[in-house]
Amino acid sequence: MNLETHWVVGFVDGEGCFYVGINRHPEITTGYQVLPEFRVVQHVRDVQVLYGLKRFFKCGVVRVNHGDRWEYRVRKLEHLKTIARFFELHPLRTKKRVDFQRFARIVRWMDEGRHLDRRGLEQIIETAARMNRGDSETLIGILAALKTKSG
Amino acid sequence: MNLETHWVVGFVDGEGCFYVGINRHPEITTGYQVLPEFRVVQHVRDVQVLYGLKRFFKCGVVRVNHGDRWEYRVRKLEHLKTIARFFELHPLRTKKRVDFQRFARIVRWMDEGRHLDRRGLEQIIETAARMNRGDSETLIGILAALKTKSG
Repeated sequence: MNLETHWVVGFVDGEGCFYVGINRHPEITTGYQVLPEFRVVQHVRDVQVLYGLKRFFKCGVVRVNHGDRWEYRVRKLEHLKTIARFFELHPLRTKKRVDFQRFARIVRWMDEGRHLDRRGLEQIIETAARMNRGDSETLIGILAALKTKSG
Repeated sequence: MNLETHWVVGFVDGEGCFYVGINRHPEITTGYQVLPEFRVVQHVRDVQVLYGLKRFFKCGVVRVNHGDRWEYRVRKLEHLKTIARFFELHPLRTKKRVDFQRFARIVRWMDEGRHLDRRGLEQIIETAARMNRGDSETLIGILAALKTKSG
């Protein structure tokens, strides 16, 4: 399936998700791993559209999300930079654009290695907590823990 | 907000809904009213996008859907013909296309006045029941009632 540029922007405005996971990881100096992820989830009946996105962006994977839901997912930093460049050139039209901008900032900071020290990590977590997500409370807790530990 | 054609197709692939309501209406000869409707629902934060759609299609209304959700809605038959022509020219890429095709068929039948007699109404209800919706059981019940009444 060949998808048009603006179709991809419109579809992602509706169905796309820019997410930054922050996971406890004892082997990392800061204690936390930053996992930015771009994904589009669809019922299996529309798996062809997900393969269309993979083909369009020339990166990412298509895999089961949960039950009869599948996802197109991009996690590699190099590939997330491709995704970020695309949506900087072709801006989203909904308020998801604001989430995307925070996401793109985090991707850029990671590319600069700023997630590897405590100050950079704090900035990333603060930015992620301002994104439209269900678990901001968790991030605020992590942030408090980080600041206490190093205070 | 000026929206691009393919953006609109992509966004409707994600967020649009083609729906055909069948309501009991004692003043209509067949006993039932057919109410096709095209709608896009968004959180109030994206109401500007809904006004963008209204401007794009040059028809329809933007109104409260429920709580903090708003909708762009098209109900007038003449305007639904405009919507149908657009998506015939610019096909949806997800399986929502199949729903749209059934919807467009019903709009065409109504334009021909076929919903005004029992046989046409049955065809419309049969087609609506095959659309991706939560209340197909209700339509099958209505259909059974219609067939019994006139049997």
